[in-house]
Amino acid sequence: MVCPGSFDPPTNGHVDVVERVARHFDSVLVAVIENPSKTALFSPIERIDMLGASLGHLGNVAVTSFDGLLVDFVRERGITLVVKGLRAVSDYDYELQMAEMNAALAPGVDTFFLAASPERGFISSSLVKEVARYGGDVSHLVPDAVAVALRERLFPTR
Amino acid sequence: MVCPGSFDPPTNGHVDVVERVARHFDSVLVAVIENPSKTALFSPIERIDMLGASLGHLGNVAVTSFDGLLVDFVRERGITLVVKGLRAVSDYDYELQMAEMNAALAPGVDTFFLAASPERGFISSSLVKEVARYGGDVSHLVPDAVAVALRERLFPTR
Amino acid sequence: MVCPGSFDPPTNGHVDVVERVARHFDSVLVAVIENPSKTALFSPIERIDMLGASLGHLGNVAVTSFDGLLVDFVRERGITLVVKGLRAVSDYDYELQMAEMNAALAPGVDTFFLAASPERGFISSSLVKEVARYGGDVSHLVPDAVAVALRERLFPTR
Amino acid sequence: MVCPGSFDPPTNGHVDVVERVARHFDSVLVAVIENPSKTALFSPIERIDMLGASLGHLGNVAVTSFDGLLVDFVRERGITLVVKGLRAVSDYDYELQMAEMNAALAPGVDTFFLAASPERGFISSSLVKEVARYGGDVSHLVPDAVAVALRERLFPTR
Amino acid sequence: MVCPGSFDPPTNGHVDVVERVARHFDSVLVAVIENPSKTALFSPIERIDMLGASLGHLGNVAVTSFDGLLVDFVRERGITLVVKGLRAVSDYDYELQMAEMNAALAPGVDTFFLAASPERGFISSSLVKEVARYGGDVSHLVPDAVAVALRERLFPTR
Amino acid sequence: MVCPGSFDPPTNGHVDVVERVARHFDSVLVAVIENPSKTALFSPIERIDMLGASLGHLGNVAVTSFDGLLVDFVRERGITLVVKGLRAVSDYDYELQMAEMNAALAPGVDTFFLAASPERGFISSSLVKEVARYGGDVSHLVPDAVAVALRERLFPTR
Repeated sequence: MVCPGSFDPPTNGHVDVVERVARHFDSVLVAVIENPSKTALFSPIERIDMLGASLGHLGNVAVTSFDGLLVDFVRERGITLVVKGLRAVSDYDYELQMAEMNAALAPGVDTFFLAASPERGFISSSLVKEVARYGGDVSHLVPDAVAVALRERLFPTR
Repeated sequence: MVCPGSFDPPTNGHVDVVERVARHFDSVLVAVIENPSKTALFSPIERIDMLGASLGHLGNVAVTSFDGLLVDFVRERGITLVVKGLRAVSDYDYELQMAEMNAALAPGVDTFFLAASPERGFISSSLVKEVARYGGDVSHLVPDAVAVALRERLFPTR
Repeated sequence: MVCPGSFDPPTNGHVDVVERVARHFDSVLVAVIENPSKTALFSPIERIDMLGASLGHLGNVAVTSFDGLLVDFVRERGITLVVKGLRAVSDYDYELQMAEMNAALAPGVDTFFLAASPERGFISSSLVKEVARYGGDVSHLVPDAVAVALRERLFPTR
Repeated sequence: MVCPGSFDPPTNGHVDVVERVARHFDSVLVAVIENPSKTALFSPIERIDMLGASLGHLGNVAVTSFDGLLVDFVRERGITLVVKGLRAVSDYDYELQMAEMNAALAPGVDTFFLAASPERGFISSSLVKEVARYGGDVSHLVPDAVAVALRERLFPTR
Repeated sequence: MVCPGSFDPPTNGHVDVVERVARHFDSVLVAVIENPSKTALFSPIERIDMLGASLGHLGNVAVTSFDGLLVDFVRERGITLVVKGLRAVSDYDYELQMAEMNAALAPGVDTFFLAASPERGFISSSLVKEVARYGGDVSHLVPDAVAVALRERLFPTR
Repeated sequence: MVCPGSFDPPTNGHVDVVERVARHFDSVLVAVIENPSKTALFSPIERIDMLGASLGHLGNVAVTSFDGLLVDFVRERGITLVVKGLRAVSDYDYELQMAEMNAALAPGVDTFFLAASPERGFISSSLVKEVARYGGDVSHLVPDAVAVALRERLFPTR
């Protein structure tokens, strides 16, 4: 079972979703989509490190990354289940299209959706980055390791 | 793990969702919501029978029914995961509210969503009943046992 | 080509949709769904009469009614195109499900959608009836013949 | 300024919305829609009493009820602003239609929307009633006065 | 009657929509939006060629392209009807805004919507390009001519 | 009370929203988001000037601009209420996320929403710019000062 995402950077919303998925499955693989075409603030290695630090309390969660298509990644690993966290309702419409595309490309691969907890549903990586860029306090929106990494990346001389 | 629903009657959309859920879990419990306040065409027992006949090819699926709140049912059985199939996008909005309500009533109970396959996403129990009432052919929309039961219930003298 | 609907009663939104459809097709059939299971304020005959009075200025529009399934109605008449007006965005989700159901029941029958003009998109038959029941002025929301019929039906002694 | 609603019964979501509205306006009028056509669990008087008990800590909030159309009520009182709390995203679509209808019936009357706090957005009066009917604990979903009133109404002999 | 689109590249979803439109109109004009501001993978000429190869079996369909505003294009040609295919539900919201804008710019021009068949509704040009870029098999998602063109464009040396 | 926005450029939809907000509050502050990361057609100063020219008939409206986060801007000024105009239904989903983020960053700051009038709901700044770039007539979509400014910016030599 895999939870794919950009995680640039991971937020408390991501942690909440992985924690809840980890309760229901023997082992969970969190997979960072490398996607070189998008401009990312953190490298895949950095994102894996931040996820590792944020999810270390979950014994059955491993973190990796992949380049290319999700369907190729899951087929190579023999994975047949994808779990995606959803924030807003409009996320569902897009993720549904992706899930149907993936099912067409890799028959037998299913996508389950899990809604973020309501009190964390508004936290998106891009909003976190925008707030952090202006010096806003994001310490209650992201894990500690991410708050530190954001400060060091955006204000290296402080 | 439980898949709750009214299943009045079960459709090919329901069968598709349960088949896909059953691939990813050791055992699946399909639970008919008895809900006496809604006027149902079939009794809970009849719905259980139709589900049994339609899902008999799946060795790890059991069928039951319950009266009362879903959260009470899952707590009594020690179940912590609910899986709901979604049809239209607007379903998601309502089911999300239900999932959040259930998480508030029974902390630790999570709801995962699974989208119906696109070519079956339009099949709803209520549309099936409306078509059947006017003598329309629903044999490609519901399992055989359900098509027979609909005919006998709606046109008993034929 | 058919424009089906309940039209209980017809509104300026319905007239707007039919006027615009009538510009693009040689002939338009407006069809009242009789649907005895829903409680209607006006009988099918009365709704046909109100549509006739409201659409009389359109030379290529005929009005009729049907009982039963839309797919049976269009197949009997050799009609292959259904045009539905949409009000709110949420209408689309439901009407899309209906259109897919109808395409499954009657392959070759397509449904086109047309959005109501923005300044009339909020007018629904049920809101009109609620306003009229409380004696509100609906004369700018419905054709004259409908405003008169509403008054006579709801306040017969005035 | 008026906050209209059915409030059958009031929930913590309603209280949250009124509390936040009351911060931004000199005086707030909460108005129970009597609407005799809907079957209500509590009478308008009972709902006014429960709102009074739940909002008593807000010095600038008054509670009343009205029968008939909202637009007639606000015109009689010289009110030009309606504030509606929204729960799910799908609420918005419906409430927007109502707001446009009301603006058409009473030019100069505007409707503002306020989203329920995310951790209370899933609480609806109808879900609360369903949970309470099955003996579920709703004490963290509604004000104390409402929890007591629900118990007395649904289980009078206890 | 015109079906405008980017078609960069055409997909089986586009072909499905044009086939169904062509059943209901005497002649259909498919028009490629040149839009120099968007970075396209294929030139307008290439897109016209791919559409020609994919729609050649439809005797009443012509293909062209235009630069500038759709409303200017249709007015110059005396066209009063635009037909747009819709994929996801969220498409509708955006396309509705465009349709209302176009009706404001060119009174008398109407936009009809047609939903893609459910089993092709998830196919978007951008997802197809992303899959093809990573060497995925898109032969069941696009017409043959497009699959060949994608391979030649993305992997010219193979 | 503040109405924040990009206003690049202001449209008749913006003017409509501010006019309606100004009816219900003693004083309204319209605030241009400078946001240097987005490529704007007009500078913040130019946008302030256009707003000033378009809203000059409203005695209780002031215009300013800010750089950085909205929550910092409102806290510095002691503002606790944000009012956002909404166009399409899909706007609501995104703006709701923003409102919840802002409430988390600045407890006590509330966001109210106001829907654009239906006959102006389709007017977006980006569509206006696209139409103007192709020489289309936008004089009925934007205030006069904006129509002039667009012409001078896009066709300086005319």
